[in-house]
Amino acid sequence: MNFRIIAYFMGWILEVEAASMVIPMILSIALGESDVWPWFLLLILIIAPLGFFLTRKRFRKGNFYVREGYAATGLGWLLLSAVGALPFFLSRRMPDYIDCLFETASGFTTTGSSVLSDIEALGKGLLFWRSFTHWLGGMGVLVLILAILPMSGGYHMQLMKAESPGPSVSKLVPRVMDTAKTLYLIYIVLTVTMILLYWISGMPLYDAVCIGFGTAGTGGFGVRNSGMADYSRASQILITIFMYLFGVNFNFYYLLSRRKFKDAFKMEEVRVYVGIILVNIIIVTLVTWRFSYRDEGLLYSLHHSAFTIGSLMSTTGFATVDFDAWPEIARLMMILLMFTGACAGSTGGGLKVSRLLLLFKEARKELHMLIHPQSVRPIKLEGKVVEHSVMRSASNYIIIYIMIFVAAFLIISIDGYDFTTNFSAVAATFNNIGPGLGKVGPTLNYSIYSPASKLVLTFCMLAGRLELLPMVMLLYPKTWTKHY
Amino acid sequence: MNFRIIAYFMGWILEVEAASMVIPMILSIALGESDVWPWFLLLILIIAPLGFFLTRKRFRKGNFYVREGYAATGLGWLLLSAVGALPFFLSRRMPDYIDCLFETASGFTTTGSSVLSDIEALGKGLLFWRSFTHWLGGMGVLVLILAILPMSGGYHMQLMKAESPGPSVSKLVPRVMDTAKTLYLIYIVLTVTMILLYWISGMPLYDAVCIGFGTAGTGGFGVRNSGMADYSRASQILITIFMYLFGVNFNFYYLLSRRKFKDAFKMEEVRVYVGIILVNIIIVTLVTWRFSYRDEGLLYSLHHSAFTIGSLMSTTGFATVDFDAWPEIARLMMILLMFTGACAGSTGGGLKVSRLLLLFKEARKELHMLIHPQSVRPIKLEGKVVEHSVMRSASNYIIIYIMIFVAAFLIISIDGYDFTTNFSAVAATFNNIGPGLGKVGPTLNYSIYSPASKLVLTFCMLAGRLELLPMVMLLYPKTWTKHY
Repeated sequence: MNFRIIAYFMGWILEVEAASMVIPMILSIALGESDVWPWFLLLILIIAPLGFFLTRKRFRKGNFYVREGYAATGLGWLLLSAVGALPFFLSRRMPDYIDCLFETASGFTTTGSSVLSDIEALGKGLLFWRSFTHWLGGMGVLVLILAILPMSGGYHMQLMKAESPGPSVSKLVPRVMDTAKTLYLIYIVLTVTMILLYWISGMPLYDAVCIGFGTAGTGGFGVRNSGMADYSRASQILITIFMYLFGVNFNFYYLLSRRKFKDAFKMEEVRVYVGIILVNIIIVTLVTWRFSYRDEGLLYSLHHSAFTIGSLMSTTGFATVDFDAWPEIARLMMILLMFTGACAGSTGGGLKVSRLLLLFKEARKELHMLIHPQSVRPIKLEGKVVEHSVMRSASNYIIIYIMIFVAAFLIISIDGYDFTTNFSAVAATFNNIGPGLGKVGPTLNYSIYSPASKLVLTFCMLAGRLELLPMVMLLYPKTWTKHY
Repeated sequence: MNFRIIAYFMGWILEVEAASMVIPMILSIALGESDVWPWFLLLILIIAPLGFFLTRKRFRKGNFYVREGYAATGLGWLLLSAVGALPFFLSRRMPDYIDCLFETASGFTTTGSSVLSDIEALGKGLLFWRSFTHWLGGMGVLVLILAILPMSGGYHMQLMKAESPGPSVSKLVPRVMDTAKTLYLIYIVLTVTMILLYWISGMPLYDAVCIGFGTAGTGGFGVRNSGMADYSRASQILITIFMYLFGVNFNFYYLLSRRKFKDAFKMEEVRVYVGIILVNIIIVTLVTWRFSYRDEGLLYSLHHSAFTIGSLMSTTGFATVDFDAWPEIARLMMILLMFTGACAGSTGGGLKVSRLLLLFKEARKELHMLIHPQSVRPIKLEGKVVEHSVMRSASNYIIIYIMIFVAAFLIISIDGYDFTTNFSAVAATFNNIGPGLGKVGPTLNYSIYSPASKLVLTFCMLAGRLELLPMVMLLYPKTWTKHY
């Protein structure tokens, strides 16, 4: 392990975090939250120089391998969450540090699971910070650093690979720095458009910005105790649309911006994503209309089904209705959507549509080969032959995913809550959704769990956001050996 | 598809089934169950000549490929269950044919899930038949046919492969017929020994025989409404021991019989199997002692923990206590054991220890390769390098397994029961355990489900017993084309 490189990137992460705290600090000063803004200021004054010190020494080229990339990503996100939790803790508006850590990791990983029942008590400064972590975490902090940092060499790719969601980095443009810039440009344009539309639709500006961050990062933190209920039907429809849009592979938008409309609409993953959405909306609308909202009517069912499906599939986690009270079949479909997740290369979590598509094709090939043992039919995705190593990591991803899922499930079960609650708690944090079912349902929160369980769920959020390996590697002793 | 070969094997299956019905018929005659034995007689008189007619024409050599092997196995087991259900139905002791089919498939697949609340009402003749299906299904009906049928050529292997549990057929002895004979010989010796010991320990002979069939096949059907509660502590301990023994890879016994003690005790799968058992017994004993059986004492906890763990891990499904009422962590451990299952090459179900071991090694390799990208370290099992194709099918097995699991879970959820009940119903049938949790817990039964759900669960039982592909292939249209 090349510790100097790790330290260098930790420095940059502190710089970014210090810069990000400036806006909530200003907001907090403006609102006169005198128990909050001094802590923001103090933190900035500590971590900015510390970051500067760590980044002063440029590291020698070379010795930056896959494991450095993964370790830098895993440690970076831990640091990000640990430091980001401090404003909540120091202001004493959230007295327990583990709660603060859970909440902040939930923010950066765009999970949106909360331990708070009264979120408005945080005050607007901290709530802004809380929502802003969603936006930062959505596209990735290291991607941001790569976009602003003039660096050369292969290590860019390692970091990009470790932080980007999906089976493999889609090669948008040949050079990583350009890719990172392009991604952030699309991200910013979409976010600003969305916030303006939210505002026009009648949301207060503060809400529009914060909910906008939550939608863009597919996070799910709100700013009101009433959740989404206060916003108009029009606002809710806009949120629905943007949740779906931020679950789309950003490659799609890149192609659109290059006027390659045909290529964009031919994207297999996007087509399957849309297909899954439509099938789910139709079935769930009919089921909830028939069994839950007979009096409210079909349009009501359609509205809330579309919202909930968009919220869960994009792994945002906003809620307009308590889907935990839906008929069992609709409820189970929602749980499955939590696992499906959004497209690769989006800000969403879950297993990713393209990964599931690959595995489905692999299963079909297995059957085909039983019938035609001599046939050689390569697996294709987006019209290209999928390399054997990509298939292998997709399978291994599922295996490691299940192992972590089971281990987390076992540990939090010690707290003694029921099967559905525990299962959905792991599912909702690991897939970066937010709310689960049962005692962690959309109208409730995660404060019921013991500190140990909260740490386990925090690990799940980070592992889910970083696609497992960066976090798993941190636990693997051999990662920390000096020699190769 | 070569239909003549399929018909030939269907004929043999009918022959075996006709022969198997002779003992319950005689028992039924002796007990004067005049509404039962005539139907056994009638069935034998119909299916024996039909089987003879179908097997009269020896098929030409050749054209027996993998798909014929899988299709013959899948269809054979369907036929076995469909015909085996008739005595229950025709005697009108179980008025609904789908119930009869569920119960019989549950028998042959050694699942042990029941739709009956009053099993004693079936009468001893039918109960004997019900338990006997466990014994037949445990080692496999096609394996039995291979053991008695003098055939030559590669198709033996195809059938053996399709019916034997585990990642790959362990090559006990070079020739398949000898393998089949050896397996059945070990099976019979163990079964007879066990029945004698049960009898000596105080069980009535009839119970000893039926419970013996249930243990040997790792099935789980009992013969009393009180379940296992009537039997003495000594009997229960014997049952515990034999459940563990029948979950062991039969290769172990083969090596013992050849006096290769060192090789036997070096078997990696058996060691891991024992390890998992010990860890679970220790934890569950302590947890249940602390929270459920404080008054009854540590030995009581040990006894029932060991029994339950043996029952679930070997996928037998006998129950002495209601583990659904255990603390959540112990309850979840039991659910996980349902998935783990027994050793490959045993009569047990589940995912199999060796398959999980392979996947675990694969995951570890993935991590290792991140740190040492240049290293080439093949995966080994039982000291031998595992071929790439075996690894690939182990991964694909998990993928197809999850797909079937999810599909079944979705369909039975339409009935509206809760998450835990449905999840455990699929888990318990698909892994051939028997009882689940919630509304299908150890003290309850599967009669709550709709006929459609019962058929889905029947499919799960068959797919689980035959390791997925033989059943999945039946649903795959290309299987049925004439051309290759």
